[in-house]
Amino acid sequence: MDIAALARSVTDGDRRALARAITLVESARADHRAAARELVAEVAQAGRQALRIGLSGTPGVGKSTFIEAFGCFLTGQGMRVAVLAVDPSSARSGGSILGDKTRMERLSRDPRAFIRPSPSQTHLGGVARRTREAVALCEAAGFDVVLIETVGVGQSETVVAEICDLFVLLLAPAGGDELQGVKRGIMEMADLILVNKADGDLKPAALRTQADYAGALRLLRKRPQDPEGFPKAMCVSALEEAGLERAWDEMRTLADWRRAQGHWDRRRAEQARHWFEEEVRQGLLAALAQGEARGLMQALGDRVAQGAITPDQAAADALAALAQG
Amino acid sequence: MDIAALARSVTDGDRRALARAITLVESARADHRAAARELVAEVAQAGRQALRIGLSGTPGVGKSTFIEAFGCFLTGQGMRVAVLAVDPSSARSGGSILGDKTRMERLSRDPRAFIRPSPSQTHLGGVARRTREAVALCEAAGFDVVLIETVGVGQSETVVAEICDLFVLLLAPAGGDELQGVKRGIMEMADLILVNKADGDLKPAALRTQADYAGALRLLRKRPQDPEGFPKAMCVSALEEAGLERAWDEMRTLADWRRAQGHWDRRRAEQARHWFEEEVRQGLLAALAQGEARGLMQALGDRVAQGAITPDQAAADALAALAQG
Repeated sequence: MDIAALARSVTDGDRRALARAITLVESARADHRAAARELVAEVAQAGRQALRIGLSGTPGVGKSTFIEAFGCFLTGQGMRVAVLAVDPSSARSGGSILGDKTRMERLSRDPRAFIRPSPSQTHLGGVARRTREAVALCEAAGFDVVLIETVGVGQSETVVAEICDLFVLLLAPAGGDELQGVKRGIMEMADLILVNKADGDLKPAALRTQADYAGALRLLRKRPQDPEGFPKAMCVSALEEAGLERAWDEMRTLADWRRAQGHWDRRRAEQARHWFEEEVRQGLLAALAQGEARGLMQALGDRVAQGAITPDQAAADALAALAQG
Repeated sequence: MDIAALARSVTDGDRRALARAITLVESARADHRAAARELVAEVAQAGRQALRIGLSGTPGVGKSTFIEAFGCFLTGQGMRVAVLAVDPSSARSGGSILGDKTRMERLSRDPRAFIRPSPSQTHLGGVARRTREAVALCEAAGFDVVLIETVGVGQSETVVAEICDLFVLLLAPAGGDELQGVKRGIMEMADLILVNKADGDLKPAALRTQADYAGALRLLRKRPQDPEGFPKAMCVSALEEAGLERAWDEMRTLADWRRAQGHWDRRRAEQARHWFEEEVRQGLLAALAQGEARGLMQALGDRVAQGAITPDQAAADALAALAQG
């Protein structure tokens, strides 16, 4: 494979090259991994940065409709927009998010937009690596905004938060004054909370929900990376395409402030270090299932299962053997 | 430290020796770790097994009252009972579960009972190892039943489920027909659901809640380790000490069936293998923060943060260097 040529096509903005490049980073084959690493390092030379927006929300909040409306709004402003999905559960649940491009019919036909569904993969580590590399490829291809969509299932938000510059939480109007369903940890990651479906009969409920979350956000500890008034809760209607410009203004205000204050660069540097360490950890653990280590683990595990040796003694033996290579 | 003598005192049923032994396995000091490993291997020679019962329930369901009443019921039957707590959050929240023995006044004065509060520790890996080793010590000391208590916070149930023979979920009567608060994953681990506070005004609600959970349990997939009718939901009242004997009968029925069918031994063997592999994983990751590996990770991490090298390229370099020792 001519990695240099593929890298050039990607940075030239060739959409089919970008799609091929993402397919390469999604592969688990050892030779593909090495090529993918080279490709990502190569396109990083371009030094381009997009605004990476993480978007989380449980099924039913209208994520697809929002992305369609918001994406079209952005391309309408002349921007190029890429949409990626992080969905570690898609292999199990069958139906993956973004799996059906027809849910975003307008956006998928927009020449300024690029939509990439989530691959069928269950391993969160693999999904994280693929997403990071796909984001890097989209940045190199000159997109202005990369939207990274995730469903509200456990750890995938944490992964997305460690990839994106801004984290947006999309909610549906709730009955009463309950903040149900949203874990505190997710709330603490959010830079902007958008209460969708603020239209028709649901508008009053959306306004109430927005007020509830605005109140809840005020109770959270102030974070150094936030200017006055952030994180913020707002209403939008993806259906009526209302509030999108205001939401975008808020995102830009926040991003500009963070750039000016040095938070942006610092966060990207921290994220890069985090992923480096995470890759090393994953690599060490993966090595246990390969070569001689695999046989050693199996043999010692058998003795442990038979009760011939305690788990901790066997672990100490295994670690000593692994350290000697 | 004379480990052989300490092991002998523990297997002789000396309670102060048992307390000292648990303090030893709770220590993170390297020499203590080595001694603890030796001690656990030594007492394992005794070949004694207790019935290990994991008990989970969120704050407010009456866990302490239940353990007090159930523990006293068991000692009243002539059994020796040890109570241990798994609480990874105790260091943060300040107040640890079981921290206040006065909440179990009767049981703590019972010569057939041994209560050990959770140490202040945040790291779940450390808590898991300590609990496993403390359970092994209690078994060697001749206890018939070891109750392992955990609060309903995320991963600690999974840890306890990988240590115990039976997993009991304690619930409070709920309003309406909602199964709120209990995650599906926790439900799937339960062998027995006990709805506490089935007394006074709450009795009708407790019966309704029991019926709701009995229905929910029937919807779960049948597990090979369960005889007909399990997992099961029942009402108890720790306050009035009602239903305890029936609950104990169910636990014994289940345990006996699993023993006879070979599930018991198979599960213990699988658990031992699981903890061996987990210890190796933890050990590999811990080694990254020590010695030359630490310096290597810091230096490469700095270059990644500066953007001089991609996270994945740096990780590949680090893994290659670590593999060469």
